[in-house]
Amino acid sequence: MAYNNSRNPLRALQKKLGSKILIRLKDGTEYKGSLKEYDNFMNVILSDASEYIKKEETNKFKEIFVRGNNVLFIIPDGE
Amino acid sequence: MAYNNSRNPLRALQKKLGSKILIRLKDGTEYKGSLKEYDNFMNVILSDASEYIKKEETNKFKEIFVRGNNVLFIIPDGE
Amino acid sequence: MAYNNSRNPLRALQKKLGSKILIRLKDGTEYKGSLKEYDNFMNVILSDASEYIKKEETNKFKEIFVRGNNVLFIIPDGE
Amino acid sequence: MAYNNSRNPLRALQKKLGSKILIRLKDGTEYKGSLKEYDNFMNVILSDASEYIKKEETNKFKEIFVRGNNVLFIIPDGE
Amino acid sequence: MAYNNSRNPLRALQKKLGSKILIRLKDGTEYKGSLKEYDNFMNVILSDASEYIKKEETNKFKEIFVRGNNVLFIIPDGE
Amino acid sequence: MAYNNSRNPLRALQKKLGSKILIRLKDGTEYKGSLKEYDNFMNVILSDASEYIKKEETNKFKEIFVRGNNVLFIIPDGE
Amino acid sequence: MAYNNSRNPLRALQKKLGSKILIRLKDGTEYKGSLKEYDNFMNVILSDASEYIKKEETNKFKEIFVRGNNVLFIIPDGE
Repeated sequence: MAYNNSRNPLRALQKKLGSKILIRLKDGTEYKGSLKEYDNFMNVILSDASEYIKKEETNKFKEIFVRGNNVLFIIPDGE
Repeated sequence: MAYNNSRNPLRALQKKLGSKILIRLKDGTEYKGSLKEYDNFMNVILSDASEYIKKEETNKFKEIFVRGNNVLFIIPDGE
Repeated sequence: MAYNNSRNPLRALQKKLGSKILIRLKDGTEYKGSLKEYDNFMNVILSDASEYIKKEETNKFKEIFVRGNNVLFIIPDGE
Repeated sequence: MAYNNSRNPLRALQKKLGSKILIRLKDGTEYKGSLKEYDNFMNVILSDASEYIKKEETNKFKEIFVRGNNVLFIIPDGE
Repeated sequence: MAYNNSRNPLRALQKKLGSKILIRLKDGTEYKGSLKEYDNFMNVILSDASEYIKKEETNKFKEIFVRGNNVLFIIPDGE
Repeated sequence: MAYNNSRNPLRALQKKLGSKILIRLKDGTEYKGSLKEYDNFMNVILSDASEYIKKEETNKFKEIFVRGNNVLFIIPDGE
Repeated sequence: MAYNNSRNPLRALQKKLGSKILIRLKDGTEYKGSLKEYDNFMNVILSDASEYIKKEETNKFKEIFVRGNNVLFIIPDGE
């Protein structure tokens, strides 16, 4: 495993562009959608996204821009 | 998809200038209005904005300046 | 709409100097007064300001200096 | 009004050195005293200061050093 | 003990790449998995991870990307 | 009063080295002790320190290192 | 007392490397162990550490990496 890789988890998201990911926010809400864009603060744009509260789908968005400081974790393989 | 794009979600807002967007704050309040200005901290100015608490319209503002650190997410297509 | 403008919402406050604005803090308290000074952190000085808690006027200040990190939003047209 | 002034509310405190000011913290506690020193983070030293909780005087300090990140607002004219 | 080592606890994670670690978040949730990547903000990617709430396994993830600012502590030896 | 002094409240702590000071944390706990070291983040080391919860002495420490971001205020004259 | 020392409380931890220290987190949990590494953000690695909740030992760790922003204070002499 290369040293540079091991020090840059955000770069790992690069490979997920266009794939389904799941984002859980600090308040427990989850968003599942296709990763369209992201930056180093974990600001993320998902397309064709669904919102889940307590595992129930509560909303659908063609596109959603999540502010990074609210993110708890990202599951790169959101299926 | 170009690398630069994928690392700059904020630039995606550039295309939404003048369009209706929806902002949800951390406290659940939502603002819908026309995106007039924004910056890298997600400070946003909306014009002709409506405020929604629990999906009920509670206020109208000719212009509102939302401080970015309160933002949970932005739905670029706020219709 | 010029690109520079669209990336600098704080500059929009420049035009409001001397005008009445309304500031809502994160705790819900509101301050209405004449915008005297501000900076990039949204530190703001209002003159001839009134404080409102649940829409009731609770105090008056000849001058008040609000620390920016407490600001939820600013209504530039505070009338 | 000069542009530089309008972008530097903290400089406005310079004129208040030696005058009585009032500081309200985020938890509602208030401190009234003579402004002795301050910096750009709103760290403030008051001399001959009184502490107020719910408008009742609860303490007196010859000198108090308040950490800026706790400050809600400052009333420059604390009389 | 070398001075450089003693000033860089994050470098200690370098030796744990590929090993099982445990991460406890501020909200008490725990994640156990193989350390794949990390950075200076303690953003961490675990592979083959399990989620534990009150010591009960509640979920499994092939890969999870935890945002560093949520981390309470890391047990490098997660077995 | 010199301009430099008025912009550097932290420098005022320099004169208190070796003197008794009182630190109140955001959670109300207080520490009284001899100021041994400090830095610009208000990280402080006290020696021969006592801990007070609701004005009751609850602990004694030969030395305590308080992280600055927890500090509410410092009373330089802690007697 | 040298000026440089008085402005660098973190350097004081250098002398404690290998000694027992106690860390109290903001949530009240305490960790006692041998100081192995630390950095300027108060990220700390303890070895042979015990966890205490309300003074009861609740866990033991061969090694624990505590994220600095959770730290309330450190007692350098943890015995």
